[in-house]
Amino acid sequence: MQQLLDTAEKIRTMEIRGAGRIAEAASAALRDYVLDLKVTNIKDFNKKVDEAANILIQTRPTAVSLPNAVQITKRHTSEDVAGAREDILHNADVFLKQAGEALERMGKIGAKRIHDGDVIMTHCNSHAALSVISTAFKQGKDISVIATESRPRRQGFITIRELNDYGIPTTLIVDSAVRYCMKEVDTVIVGADAITVNGALVNKVGTSQLAHAAHEARKNVLSVAETFKFSPNTILGDMIDIEERAADEVIDQEILAELPNVKVKNPAFDITPAEYIDMIITEVGAFPPQMAYTIIKEHLGWELSHMG
Amino acid sequence: MQQLLDTAEKIRTMEIRGAGRIAEAASAALRDYVLDLKVTNIKDFNKKVDEAANILIQTRPTAVSLPNAVQITKRHTSEDVAGAREDILHNADVFLKQAGEALERMGKIGAKRIHDGDVIMTHCNSHAALSVISTAFKQGKDISVIATESRPRRQGFITIRELNDYGIPTTLIVDSAVRYCMKEVDTVIVGADAITVNGALVNKVGTSQLAHAAHEARKNVLSVAETFKFSPNTILGDMIDIEERAADEVIDQEILAELPNVKVKNPAFDITPAEYIDMIITEVGAFPPQMAYTIIKEHLGWELSHMG
Amino acid sequence: MQQLLDTAEKIRTMEIRGAGRIAEAASAALRDYVLDLKVTNIKDFNKKVDEAANILIQTRPTAVSLPNAVQITKRHTSEDVAGAREDILHNADVFLKQAGEALERMGKIGAKRIHDGDVIMTHCNSHAALSVISTAFKQGKDISVIATESRPRRQGFITIRELNDYGIPTTLIVDSAVRYCMKEVDTVIVGADAITVNGALVNKVGTSQLAHAAHEARKNVLSVAETFKFSPNTILGDMIDIEERAADEVIDQEILAELPNVKVKNPAFDITPAEYIDMIITEVGAFPPQMAYTIIKEHLGWELSHMG
Amino acid sequence: MQQLLDTAEKIRTMEIRGAGRIAEAASAALRDYVLDLKVTNIKDFNKKVDEAANILIQTRPTAVSLPNAVQITKRHTSEDVAGAREDILHNADVFLKQAGEALERMGKIGAKRIHDGDVIMTHCNSHAALSVISTAFKQGKDISVIATESRPRRQGFITIRELNDYGIPTTLIVDSAVRYCMKEVDTVIVGADAITVNGALVNKVGTSQLAHAAHEARKNVLSVAETFKFSPNTILGDMIDIEERAADEVIDQEILAELPNVKVKNPAFDITPAEYIDMIITEVGAFPPQMAYTIIKEHLGWELSHMG
Amino acid sequence: MQQLLDTAEKIRTMEIRGAGRIAEAASAALRDYVLDLKVTNIKDFNKKVDEAANILIQTRPTAVSLPNAVQITKRHTSEDVAGAREDILHNADVFLKQAGEALERMGKIGAKRIHDGDVIMTHCNSHAALSVISTAFKQGKDISVIATESRPRRQGFITIRELNDYGIPTTLIVDSAVRYCMKEVDTVIVGADAITVNGALVNKVGTSQLAHAAHEARKNVLSVAETFKFSPNTILGDMIDIEERAADEVIDQEILAELPNVKVKNPAFDITPAEYIDMIITEVGAFPPQMAYTIIKEHLGWELSHMG
Amino acid sequence: MQQLLDTAEKIRTMEIRGAGRIAEAASAALRDYVLDLKVTNIKDFNKKVDEAANILIQTRPTAVSLPNAVQITKRHTSEDVAGAREDILHNADVFLKQAGEALERMGKIGAKRIHDGDVIMTHCNSHAALSVISTAFKQGKDISVIATESRPRRQGFITIRELNDYGIPTTLIVDSAVRYCMKEVDTVIVGADAITVNGALVNKVGTSQLAHAAHEARKNVLSVAETFKFSPNTILGDMIDIEERAADEVIDQEILAELPNVKVKNPAFDITPAEYIDMIITEVGAFPPQMAYTIIKEHLGWELSHMG
Repeated sequence: MQQLLDTAEKIRTMEIRGAGRIAEAASAALRDYVLDLKVTNIKDFNKKVDEAANILIQTRPTAVSLPNAVQITKRHTSEDVAGAREDILHNADVFLKQAGEALERMGKIGAKRIHDGDVIMTHCNSHAALSVISTAFKQGKDISVIATESRPRRQGFITIRELNDYGIPTTLIVDSAVRYCMKEVDTVIVGADAITVNGALVNKVGTSQLAHAAHEARKNVLSVAETFKFSPNTILGDMIDIEERAADEVIDQEILAELPNVKVKNPAFDITPAEYIDMIITEVGAFPPQMAYTIIKEHLGWELSHMG
Repeated sequence: MQQLLDTAEKIRTMEIRGAGRIAEAASAALRDYVLDLKVTNIKDFNKKVDEAANILIQTRPTAVSLPNAVQITKRHTSEDVAGAREDILHNADVFLKQAGEALERMGKIGAKRIHDGDVIMTHCNSHAALSVISTAFKQGKDISVIATESRPRRQGFITIRELNDYGIPTTLIVDSAVRYCMKEVDTVIVGADAITVNGALVNKVGTSQLAHAAHEARKNVLSVAETFKFSPNTILGDMIDIEERAADEVIDQEILAELPNVKVKNPAFDITPAEYIDMIITEVGAFPPQMAYTIIKEHLGWELSHMG
Repeated sequence: MQQLLDTAEKIRTMEIRGAGRIAEAASAALRDYVLDLKVTNIKDFNKKVDEAANILIQTRPTAVSLPNAVQITKRHTSEDVAGAREDILHNADVFLKQAGEALERMGKIGAKRIHDGDVIMTHCNSHAALSVISTAFKQGKDISVIATESRPRRQGFITIRELNDYGIPTTLIVDSAVRYCMKEVDTVIVGADAITVNGALVNKVGTSQLAHAAHEARKNVLSVAETFKFSPNTILGDMIDIEERAADEVIDQEILAELPNVKVKNPAFDITPAEYIDMIITEVGAFPPQMAYTIIKEHLGWELSHMG
Repeated sequence: MQQLLDTAEKIRTMEIRGAGRIAEAASAALRDYVLDLKVTNIKDFNKKVDEAANILIQTRPTAVSLPNAVQITKRHTSEDVAGAREDILHNADVFLKQAGEALERMGKIGAKRIHDGDVIMTHCNSHAALSVISTAFKQGKDISVIATESRPRRQGFITIRELNDYGIPTTLIVDSAVRYCMKEVDTVIVGADAITVNGALVNKVGTSQLAHAAHEARKNVLSVAETFKFSPNTILGDMIDIEERAADEVIDQEILAELPNVKVKNPAFDITPAEYIDMIITEVGAFPPQMAYTIIKEHLGWELSHMG
Repeated sequence: MQQLLDTAEKIRTMEIRGAGRIAEAASAALRDYVLDLKVTNIKDFNKKVDEAANILIQTRPTAVSLPNAVQITKRHTSEDVAGAREDILHNADVFLKQAGEALERMGKIGAKRIHDGDVIMTHCNSHAALSVISTAFKQGKDISVIATESRPRRQGFITIRELNDYGIPTTLIVDSAVRYCMKEVDTVIVGADAITVNGALVNKVGTSQLAHAAHEARKNVLSVAETFKFSPNTILGDMIDIEERAADEVIDQEILAELPNVKVKNPAFDITPAEYIDMIITEVGAFPPQMAYTIIKEHLGWELSHMG
Repeated sequence: MQQLLDTAEKIRTMEIRGAGRIAEAASAALRDYVLDLKVTNIKDFNKKVDEAANILIQTRPTAVSLPNAVQITKRHTSEDVAGAREDILHNADVFLKQAGEALERMGKIGAKRIHDGDVIMTHCNSHAALSVISTAFKQGKDISVIATESRPRRQGFITIRELNDYGIPTTLIVDSAVRYCMKEVDTVIVGADAITVNGALVNKVGTSQLAHAAHEARKNVLSVAETFKFSPNTILGDMIDIEERAADEVIDQEILAELPNVKVKNPAFDITPAEYIDMIITEVGAFPPQMAYTIIKEHLGWELSHMG
């Protein structure tokens, strides 16, 4: 259990971060926990597993990949502990293997949408989006990238470093320059923190501004997202909570303290409506956003009755 | 002449900055230059004045308020030096007086568009926009403001400080959060660096994103601009150059030096099309942006034949 | 048979009205008819059942819930009368139970889309929409409702009475004031008379104006509809007929008689395109309107070959 | 003075109503008052006239035609009473004559935009709009009209009676059926209660819904308005107040009394943005709405310095 | 083999043309080839069939109906030659029969969307679209058609000849007159060369202009397409190549030879986004374009693992 | 008079064609007629001039430049024949000189809107548009042009020949390929046959499709038009008639004779709404289309009272 608590803590403190890596860490932690779990009664086993699962899920309650990974890992239909354990170990292995392969598959599928000479705009730092861009570049396509700074955490700096290392010509802009630069862009490619049943994209705050400006200028918008980033609970009407983060990401606390009439609003994500997204690239294919329910049903295997 | 050269240098180095203050400084410098000008021949006089005017204009070639102020100040129809000097001194006095009164008048006119309970979003740091907001607040209207950070120079920090000093409840957001927060907004109020003959607004980069998001959500967009911010030359087809500023405003030069494939694009302004602007508040009234030509003709007094 | 004829008459004369209640009454009537049906030959049995079904269906030929309920109730695959009767009785019981539960489930699912402080606009009198609103209110959410008059029958008066009884703060407006009031609204919630395969919503005339104004102002539009309100026949290209009702609902016949050049057009419904609807809340989940085919296939169980 | 007070009272109680007729009555009342005014000192004269003018203006503070008519009538530059009186009598005569001719001129200009076979939709009861429609019909054009009911006062009933008397084929619809019927419409023609400097149309509530639906379907929208319906004060930033009328126009007070949680919102007008209006037909020509400032300047003769 | 090579050549040279007829010819050719194929080893058999299939597919690499027909025909799971041959013969028979029936079924389904008095606009020469139009006309509906010339090949001339033969009143226009004539149109009906997974329509160049103009004017747009025109490979991210055809279709080579600075761009197709299409009429029903993935999955039977 | 009749005939038969050249020929013809006119009485003189003017105007009743040129030429206020003749000769000289200079001035003004690397799309054959394009090219800007064929008369062939002669890289496309090629375009530049008071552009059929597709993709649209192409009569509500030309421009009469159910609709022009046009480049400056009334008033000198 201590190992699982450690992993939970690392997720909570963002030592482990990124929707994909969180999901993998949680699945592995549950697997290891089950491996060592010393109970002989299936009822006790299930109860313990549920407890462990909840600890993991509650570390970042808004990350859809996290509960998805935990639910996929823990489900079994066995009546005895041995069978249940075997199922869960198998689930974890399959999940981790698929997650590992998904990035590469999405890269291959998405790279087909990129052509020689394309200028791509991206936002924040998405491994999924970068997989598509770098795959296209490795295929010999002559492309360049415009990367936003992505205040307040400036994840754009990580992105331009990675693009630089690939050798891809890259231009850094501030977030306010998105619409100004959109005329030069051919395709916007972003990742996803979550996708709802009606195809809305929850992603790094500012994403909806890229998509809105792209739509205005008839440019393509691709979101690259593993199937485990789709949210089954939105079928039940659940909204995805938008995490509000601390003020000191935006302004020094000392300055703020001098300004009693001023507060900071720092949403981590925003929501892009389906009408501004052309395609979602997953590891099982490219789909229009309105197909989200079908993707959830086919690839997450969650039926309504399993939920709430 | 030395005094005029000093003023020109201060404008060039941005010791004197802000479209309004630049205009006033240039008009005053030309007035003082003419006051001391020791020529007796009107032809020489005109030549000297033109030289001085050009020195001032070339300090910041893209600031429309600057050539407007200089042209308004230097025009005269006198055949002798005494008359010409008198005209120019008078022009400068009128211009400086009007510029001084314009902020207050715009504040009064614009404040009528603000209602009790309104949430106003503003961008960058505009004295004209703040005049409207503070006038409404002083009238006892219960308002609050959402101010953007305005990267890369973070002029939003100046804005929140000024709003704090007025006692106006203010929320600071990053530039990427504009569309996310737009649902709460009633009116967007921004300044203007220049307005073209077809009503396009040249203003701090990111302004077009505020206006685009506001238009999407059926919110009002007001630009507050003295008449001397309208560009007569656009009637002749001239485009307004968008100043590109240095990379180190966005990222440390040292980091950039490590990234040979990365460059920075740092436009200071962007262009908001007239269709996203509801009204332009000037010191002579509120107009739809399509009226720009009429405003230029009536209030700048420049006819086509006087130009290029 | 007399009992079934009585029910049919009550539906025809609108003594029984409302898409849900009509469906339930027809299913029950068919069940009772089958219960008493004195034939021993399966061929005769099927013929009699078909006759009875057609009587019910033809009472209000445009109500999709009616043929859906009848078809769901009468389908069986048995080769003998006893088995067929049993199937039909079972079908009716399931249908009636599910219909009874659907309102509550839709209420729970839809209420998740309502937040503290929301202003909701609704149109006409929809039990499904009111289930969502009242559920949210009972959950303690501080909401208020703007209800349209809904000329010509003024079903809005029923709606405000029901909202008043729940204790929900409510504002009544005329139908022309919809767009004027839209700025204050957070979410539009309406019912559905029918939903087509391409996600178009057939509902009380005026619904499309609410949705159009909401879309213009970036407000959410929810339609609340049991799955039996989806129209399988639209998959075959069928249009849903829009019922034209009598002139005297709009103007006194006596006045009209004085005006030989004037006639009245009184459509009962209009059609809202899918692009103006964010979500359809059903008893089996919330979906984007484009998912209508999948909902029909999964939940009405009608395949193409059964139709036509 | 008593006569003027009588007229003021009739305007206040809506015995005299309609933007045009109010304007004419006020101008005539001021003329008659001046005719009888027994003062010999120009200062006293002006003061008396101002008092009388204010009494008239304050009867319906939101009707733009009223202050416009009064200001046009009372302005003079004479230094003596005889000259001032002469000016005012002349002003009133000119105003009344022009107002009388305007309807006919607008009818002729607007009728050119109507073609054989056109279906016209109109809202509420506008003499200006009806002048256009009836002129086209009298020219032998084969047209028909769709008239809305225009709740709550049902001025549509007056409109269909007038159209019937002209012999024009007319269809009455409820206000909710506007968008449903728009596909059959060629041109929407409405009047105006006021037009702002940025071309927004203030007219009977529901007008913006006609214009919005027409714009969606690429149909023309004409507003027919005398120049004295344009609002000079909007140049100074003034908003036009939207009159809220009594609840009992919408619902019986007795019913409302039973519903403690229900109130009524009954705005008399709404605001249509310039982008939904193709042309404004005035007595001096047809203009795009963005030309409102030019119309005010050329035809109302009010300069900024005369105001505020 | 020679027979198959002959068929391949006829497709390549467009002696056999039209997406439907190409598909049928290829399926039949493969069937005949397999019928005569003299191998006894299943491995050899499969290799030979694959070779033959590739010859057919490569004749017109961009026609989706061609690889679809070949893949549907050749798939089998038998371990021996006799079984495999039987499967393939059966596949071909089923495919050819269904293709034969599809036109008629689409005609019946689509005709339900056409009403008495409708004006239909069509583009190029589509048997599928004409099946819908002629079916409606044969049902006695009083319709007329506007047909575009469809430069450069002027397939509109074939279309008007066919419409003339049906007796349907038809108007020919040049391609530039599409938007001008759209006001008179009720419904746009076109065929399809391919439909992608996100519902985009690849069809004769100019189709997107019809759809764009129809969308602007709130007119319906139907595409009529057999299920075998949907592209499974787009699920894998593949773009559909737009064939560029020879310059001499547009301008005489001799004239072009005189103009060294001039070249010709002659794309055969363009791409209409899903948002401009209301319905796709297939032989298995009418669907919104966003349902393309579901149609591919249900009716082409291609799963991801069979591809790429 | 014979000379004037000859000119009139040449305009009628299109021996003289092009809105600009027609205008110039008519002005010159009227001048020459007046020069020789042997009457001594001013009343007779005016009558004769009016007759001659009407002959010219009626040759092509829809060409706005024609009546404008004639009216500008013939207006005078003299009481005697000598003065009137002198005025008219002067008018003609000024008009012809200005018309001659206008092309060059428009070229200079418009060329400022073209940048290095721009791809320009143009339609039909406009000397005004070509003046802008060739001026930019002569300034050394590295530009290329996409020219439409412009069926049915294929004026695009004249355009590509002229562009070839300038040495400007040019691509010819069919009219259906406009939207397909729009992604590569930076600016659309077209001429004008007439511009209405609300800024609508009447130009070669198909122009509205270029502008519509450009607007969809956020590309600039410029119309280049001398001030005498603006229509004063539209201020009076007049519509501009769209000339319908003969069927044999589109299809051989022999083929058409075989097709009794087919007719041809061949409009020469279409109408582009102001919202799709960014700027109108005239010889007196660049304006937004909504400024048309101001341009008419300032530069055509026609006041309402001079008309109808």
